[in-house]
Amino acid sequence: MTEAGRPLDAETLRARAAAVRVVGFDVDGVCTDGRLFYGPSGEALHAFHAQDGLGIARARSHLLLVAVTGRKSKNVEARLSELKVPHILQGIFDKAAAFQEVLDANGFGWDQAAFIGDDVNDVPCLQRAALGFTVPNAVLDVFPHAHAVTRKSGGHGALRELLETVLKAQGHWTSDR
Amino acid sequence: MTEAGRPLDAETLRARAAAVRVVGFDVDGVCTDGRLFYGPSGEALHAFHAQDGLGIARARSHLLLVAVTGRKSKNVEARLSELKVPHILQGIFDKAAAFQEVLDANGFGWDQAAFIGDDVNDVPCLQRAALGFTVPNAVLDVFPHAHAVTRKSGGHGALRELLETVLKAQGHWTSDR
Amino acid sequence: MTEAGRPLDAETLRARAAAVRVVGFDVDGVCTDGRLFYGPSGEALHAFHAQDGLGIARARSHLLLVAVTGRKSKNVEARLSELKVPHILQGIFDKAAAFQEVLDANGFGWDQAAFIGDDVNDVPCLQRAALGFTVPNAVLDVFPHAHAVTRKSGGHGALRELLETVLKAQGHWTSDR
Amino acid sequence: MTEAGRPLDAETLRARAAAVRVVGFDVDGVCTDGRLFYGPSGEALHAFHAQDGLGIARARSHLLLVAVTGRKSKNVEARLSELKVPHILQGIFDKAAAFQEVLDANGFGWDQAAFIGDDVNDVPCLQRAALGFTVPNAVLDVFPHAHAVTRKSGGHGALRELLETVLKAQGHWTSDR
Repeated sequence: MTEAGRPLDAETLRARAAAVRVVGFDVDGVCTDGRLFYGPSGEALHAFHAQDGLGIARARSHLLLVAVTGRKSKNVEARLSELKVPHILQGIFDKAAAFQEVLDANGFGWDQAAFIGDDVNDVPCLQRAALGFTVPNAVLDVFPHAHAVTRKSGGHGALRELLETVLKAQGHWTSDR
Repeated sequence: MTEAGRPLDAETLRARAAAVRVVGFDVDGVCTDGRLFYGPSGEALHAFHAQDGLGIARARSHLLLVAVTGRKSKNVEARLSELKVPHILQGIFDKAAAFQEVLDANGFGWDQAAFIGDDVNDVPCLQRAALGFTVPNAVLDVFPHAHAVTRKSGGHGALRELLETVLKAQGHWTSDR
Repeated sequence: MTEAGRPLDAETLRARAAAVRVVGFDVDGVCTDGRLFYGPSGEALHAFHAQDGLGIARARSHLLLVAVTGRKSKNVEARLSELKVPHILQGIFDKAAAFQEVLDANGFGWDQAAFIGDDVNDVPCLQRAALGFTVPNAVLDVFPHAHAVTRKSGGHGALRELLETVLKAQGHWTSDR
Repeated sequence: MTEAGRPLDAETLRARAAAVRVVGFDVDGVCTDGRLFYGPSGEALHAFHAQDGLGIARARSHLLLVAVTGRKSKNVEARLSELKVPHILQGIFDKAAAFQEVLDANGFGWDQAAFIGDDVNDVPCLQRAALGFTVPNAVLDVFPHAHAVTRKSGGHGALRELLETVLKAQGHWTSDR
């Protein structure tokens, strides 16, 4: 079963998206297709996507963006800091606790949060967020906890879809320039 | 909806292709699949495609080629200058204005222009060009503005298809050598 | 025919998985999609997957993990030693003999072993192991010898599926954190 | 139309394969998926495939292998010389002439040759060879000239399929080790 286990009707999804102030996202498998390019000295490259970049550039003046990832990578730091993502939480074992700290520090609640992830350590965030998205390339056990599955796979514009959904519901998106 | 929103019948498409003198193209998502390979110091690699290279090599003596991209990358400069693309416009916010400058400077109009792009910032060019192509991997909001969608995805020979369409309509293509 | 040639009913598969103590795996085509990235000085990169990494991290306290590959690569050493895989057997011509040495040295038999591979040199291990898995991207001649084919391709989480199957059968897997 | 334009019945294909002494192959799009990874200083990486490597290693004692490519790349030299491909013809404009030189020099004819390619500059070789293969990712104009299309795409084991076809017809292939 690779469909969302907790689908929302279009009206509810739109209402929740309109209330979102914070978007949390996993990195490997969401901003990338999960692949880790290794050379002889270890990790060498991450493959991000241009469509996500455009989405992040448009979203950052309207939404608080929070990357939350279990691994630690300088490649991730390089890409996300270039895109001016304000919170880049790496090496996180308990993602829900780390994400909630950011929510608390900024006076937001889970009902104002969206989250997108592809693996079992993202499930607690998906369960708590007002909008929990996953990707077609997620592990099977994630789908039951998602409100929606992006059309595109991780690393090919999946994060962009979540950002567009939120920004469109808030009237902050234009599609002709 | 991932079909062209403004399809042309075969005869009209061919007639328009026969009149094309300038081909403008986006880079990320068109000449590549949109992926941006990052290392610890930032952007490291772009993945172009050999079939596009052969198409560009054959097109450049018949058509004015213009790359128009919102980002700035030395990788793009390296590949496109090797292929002798005469106009490589990088870091462009308003693509239609930048492309029109090239048209004006060379005495061409939009009715002599084809354009291919994958994201919303390509839409103004797609709306104005005589031939506006997009790719299967485009964001959804681009399809309504396209006359045609390439068979192959960006980075896998999509630009080549547009170039072949134009060169075939003009009798400048051979398929057996 | 890209289906498993020796399918097991769910009960048998689960019973065999419950008895597994050792998981052997090929690298190229299983931990990666088989691609070898070469630069001017030779092999440069291998593309591993984050979902396999999480699976290995959870499996290593319950199972003996053994990588068995015909090639030799420092990239493989870098990734698998980072993941603390205890046996990384590279440059192996006779994989079944090499894997059996590890089994013998640790007091295990083939009835306690699972193996996953994608090419003909993996067939002897697939024939002997209690659980023999292959991947959708295997060469055709491998499928007849497999008990199961992973849903995901090599390099995109295939090894993770085998590890999950075994750990779930043993009650060592949690899907909500 | 992405099917072979000149299909052979199984018996004819096998008879022709049994007579093959020389296998010529294009590189970009056949040994790779056609992608050219560029960094700021130009071409950086080529992505070859492990299954092709195993096929080449087994074929080279039975068949004369000839790589024929229009581009020039040190990456290609690095990979193919490691695999001991005896003829690596790069920067070739007229592939049929270059390949025929090798045939002549070794006392073979086109009726003893197989060739696999993905683009229009491979067509003359496909037309002359006893066995002309192409790949699913070829440009459309190549398919009419091919006797067969590989199941796997270029860069994912396509060359291996041609080599297996030839070696199996000659009794030089084993699938269980």
